[in-house]
Amino acid sequence: MAMIYDRIAIIGIGLIGASIARAAREFGAANTIQLYDANPDVRARARELDLGEVIDDPEEAVAKAELVVLCVPVGAMAEAVTACKQGLKIGAIVTDVGSVKQAVVSALTELLPTYVYFVPGHPLAGTEHSGPDAGFASLFHNRWQILTPLPGDEREGYGAAVDQVEEFWRALGANVDRMDPERHDVVLAVVSHLPHLIAFNIVAMAEDLESVTESEVVKYSASGFRDFTRIAASDPTMWRDVFLNNREAVLEVLGRFSEDLAALQRAIRWGEGDTLYDLFDRARRMRREVIEAGQDTPAPNWGREN
Amino acid sequence: MAMIYDRIAIIGIGLIGASIARAAREFGAANTIQLYDANPDVRARARELDLGEVIDDPEEAVAKAELVVLCVPVGAMAEAVTACKQGLKIGAIVTDVGSVKQAVVSALTELLPTYVYFVPGHPLAGTEHSGPDAGFASLFHNRWQILTPLPGDEREGYGAAVDQVEEFWRALGANVDRMDPERHDVVLAVVSHLPHLIAFNIVAMAEDLESVTESEVVKYSASGFRDFTRIAASDPTMWRDVFLNNREAVLEVLGRFSEDLAALQRAIRWGEGDTLYDLFDRARRMRREVIEAGQDTPAPNWGREN
Repeated sequence: MAMIYDRIAIIGIGLIGASIARAAREFGAANTIQLYDANPDVRARARELDLGEVIDDPEEAVAKAELVVLCVPVGAMAEAVTACKQGLKIGAIVTDVGSVKQAVVSALTELLPTYVYFVPGHPLAGTEHSGPDAGFASLFHNRWQILTPLPGDEREGYGAAVDQVEEFWRALGANVDRMDPERHDVVLAVVSHLPHLIAFNIVAMAEDLESVTESEVVKYSASGFRDFTRIAASDPTMWRDVFLNNREAVLEVLGRFSEDLAALQRAIRWGEGDTLYDLFDRARRMRREVIEAGQDTPAPNWGREN
Repeated sequence: MAMIYDRIAIIGIGLIGASIARAAREFGAANTIQLYDANPDVRARARELDLGEVIDDPEEAVAKAELVVLCVPVGAMAEAVTACKQGLKIGAIVTDVGSVKQAVVSALTELLPTYVYFVPGHPLAGTEHSGPDAGFASLFHNRWQILTPLPGDEREGYGAAVDQVEEFWRALGANVDRMDPERHDVVLAVVSHLPHLIAFNIVAMAEDLESVTESEVVKYSASGFRDFTRIAASDPTMWRDVFLNNREAVLEVLGRFSEDLAALQRAIRWGEGDTLYDLFDRARRMRREVIEAGQDTPAPNWGREN
């Protein structure tokens, strides 16, 4: 496969940044990979892990790069761009991996120079681990990468830039979809942000119950609770920024969740067995669709050893 | 290893009953295994699967058995006992696998003859699959089996019967704990019943949202949502009965969950980043404890292939 880029830069070397670096090298998407992280310890670790050319200065880190991938939490995007923007070459493509798109778009379109192309994106991939050590090359394999091209950008060359970002992600093994930023934020509030919020809530709640001790919760967690602890172990900074920056859509779907939960609570209180059965049966059908769509493994218990 | 029982009977041949049959044979816990299910199709399938001696009459199915294991949903326990009780031999031990203990204890202590020993139990093991085909011998390996011996039963021989049930489960690979029935129901409401209820609620909700289509939810489910679909695929009859029979404890912990969720909602609305961060960070610590306790795999994403 021909190299897509001669030189790319990755700003922020966490799970996602490190995975992009490994995947770009393994799947031949870039000749040279320049990396920067604001944390010197992370840069030192990235050097040890040999993730690419780790550079101590953010402007130098993006110099000459045809593609710059911003891999910092949503709330740190503006700061990252401010730190490196003087180094961006004319005609460079800038993309990001933020889990919220409208807030990133409005923060960065003001900041970025007019001589670069900005193609916002979000890979629906990750694990509960974070930091440069957590990265691996196959993270994006068969996962969705959503691009939210700017509807207002009608410059010549913008369409080609979007296509090139798409080609990059396909080289990393991802499937690519395009969506407008607002739609992205509503869909992700449902499929990702609310599930994480619910998981954080139940796990934090269980930690300081009066009726049941924390050690009992841990000991018997395999009966259901443990499933929630996995996504609740995700990076707290990243998730704080998601909720602060996708407030409207999250509050909307959270309102609906609470309304439905109140109805379920009432059905339990009044012993309405048929209502409960019908709802549980509907939920079961959704699992089959997820499996049929290739979005999860059919192995019982995800193939975990008990 | 010496056989613990010469003859056992399993009433109800779903995931749990079939797994007990397979495990008892594989790990040498019983010489003869007699099985019965009220559904003739399930009995036919159990014969094809060669799970043991499948018997068409419930009284005959328990005849001469030293241990009878009731493996039906909580709401079907009384009916199962009524159907087989005339066949129980004097001195037989009856145990069950119901996910709720107080309701089962009060339903069955009235019904069972005075010449048998009743040792209620609950294995904290399962998968999202159900039916006889879903059973496998290692299901209970390294999982907790909770016994809730009857505090009021002071007959000579009762303590020995409890010990023998414990020995049976240990032979199947389980770790065994003892607890009183009321405590069991409170603990399980937290670690199992609430997590399932939340999962059922979010999955059913996502099915009929106006803002996002079902196919979008399915397509992008790997970003968090899919984790909830697994436990929401569990048997709806079993779970209906759990909620109908552990109403008080479930409503209590559900109230607490909703209260905490409302606080989280408020923190999002008012942009309280520190509150969110602290809560997410606490949740993360719980994951580490679950892993250290050997209750889940440390592999990222449970080792799923993406």
